[in-house]
Amino acid sequence: MGNTNDIKENLNVKSISNSTAPVGVFDSGVGGLTVAREIMRQLPHENIVYFGDTARVPYGSKSRDNIIRFSRQIVRFLGTKDVKAIVIACNTASALALETVQDETDIPVIGVIVPGARAAVQATENGIIGVAGTEATIQSETYTKVIRQMNPDAVVIGKPCPLFVPLVEEGFAKHRITEEVIDIYLSDMQKTDIDTMILGCTHYPLLRSGIRAYFGEKVHIVNPAYETAMDLKKILAKNGTENRSGQPAAYEFYVSDAAEKFTRFANGILTYDVAATRLVNIEEY
Amino acid sequence: MGNTNDIKENLNVKSISNSTAPVGVFDSGVGGLTVAREIMRQLPHENIVYFGDTARVPYGSKSRDNIIRFSRQIVRFLGTKDVKAIVIACNTASALALETVQDETDIPVIGVIVPGARAAVQATENGIIGVAGTEATIQSETYTKVIRQMNPDAVVIGKPCPLFVPLVEEGFAKHRITEEVIDIYLSDMQKTDIDTMILGCTHYPLLRSGIRAYFGEKVHIVNPAYETAMDLKKILAKNGTENRSGQPAAYEFYVSDAAEKFTRFANGILTYDVAATRLVNIEEY
Repeated sequence: MGNTNDIKENLNVKSISNSTAPVGVFDSGVGGLTVAREIMRQLPHENIVYFGDTARVPYGSKSRDNIIRFSRQIVRFLGTKDVKAIVIACNTASALALETVQDETDIPVIGVIVPGARAAVQATENGIIGVAGTEATIQSETYTKVIRQMNPDAVVIGKPCPLFVPLVEEGFAKHRITEEVIDIYLSDMQKTDIDTMILGCTHYPLLRSGIRAYFGEKVHIVNPAYETAMDLKKILAKNGTENRSGQPAAYEFYVSDAAEKFTRFANGILTYDVAATRLVNIEEY
Repeated sequence: MGNTNDIKENLNVKSISNSTAPVGVFDSGVGGLTVAREIMRQLPHENIVYFGDTARVPYGSKSRDNIIRFSRQIVRFLGTKDVKAIVIACNTASALALETVQDETDIPVIGVIVPGARAAVQATENGIIGVAGTEATIQSETYTKVIRQMNPDAVVIGKPCPLFVPLVEEGFAKHRITEEVIDIYLSDMQKTDIDTMILGCTHYPLLRSGIRAYFGEKVHIVNPAYETAMDLKKILAKNGTENRSGQPAAYEFYVSDAAEKFTRFANGILTYDVAATRLVNIEEY
């Protein structure tokens, strides 16, 4: 494979001006539901097509080449659903594949990193910002680069927390073992002067109460989902593609594996009741 | 996808009678190296082609349909290397895909479950056997079925341990957090009368010292890798395809992602020095 991903492709996602078209949201698995939840809350009239790549989860330990390839396949799939915009609700894919995918499609594509970085830059008083994320996200240093573009004096302290995703996926979010893993990963960061910390993986908001308790009130915890939904709202408004049909929003869920398990998990996260999740062979896209 | 996996395919792996042909060994990632290591030890003249599906690891939380699809792709890939036999060095794939793959190829394919079950049946005195494995392996009840075929009176107590694979993959095998996770998963089993326990996932031998310390000397710990290598030896002898060339064995390693990370990990497990690991786009097979 090597650098074949550096050759630009055309993902054949055509520009959609139909305002009732859905917004595509994707993630490596269930974590992106924390972003979908925020979009449902802030943009209650928008239809959503969600895709979770449960056959290949997790992304955070995998290479840039594969994350770009996976993201292209998912964008092609969402293109078949005539989406009017795409939200990459996965920090790892946002860090490694956003620019590539933006170059290769005609519709707006947004990630979670720019919104998360902006929220942190606005929240910090001393300019010292912590970022917890997957190995791939932290190694890419995308958060550091984006934050420094906004505030060249900012100090960014990143920390990979590879076990957080499996702990959440296995239902251990509130387990005492998770408190210990939080301590193992974040004790060095806790000793610094950070006053703001970004939950730089869409699974991590599900560990928010444990992380909040660990850092105490002195540290502002940023969940990029909130700002991402705000950015999506602004883009739809700017393009005049907000859904004004007055119909109740429709939500569709697709995964590449284990649809029933996903449905159960989704019903624990969303206020909306997910009736069914459909299977997609994503390798065909 | 649904039940499309129940339609028999021809994996186009032709019968090889060339005794210098390699043995194919595959796993979802690095865990199968514990089986490869045992084959290298017991069958030092056999060439090996190893494939680790690091782009889609882990398998244990995924569905039967996808595990069969992944296994078929890997068998097709190994077929291009003219292997004379295939060892499925992954309990999850052995539990869910072995019979399908055996039906669809002309060369011998063996898994790790039958050898592991046989070793446990031979070792137990009271007939009460524990099995630790992935969610998919334990839910399939394949170990239970195979053990009962060998000893209808055996009692089998299975326990899914989904965090063991990420703990090993993240290098936490000897970490104190892993001791606690062992206690969380295995305390119920420890209270039973098992006298034998199967490490029913190829990652688990890397946690052997912790599991051994937890159960103490009263429980016999079975690593199916040893019996699997013995079974391979018997099959090659029966078919007259043992490598008698007298040449030093050659080992090749392929993965679907993150080749350098795999090479580092492999060099921590194997006595043989892995110089390089090659990338394969397994979705093309």
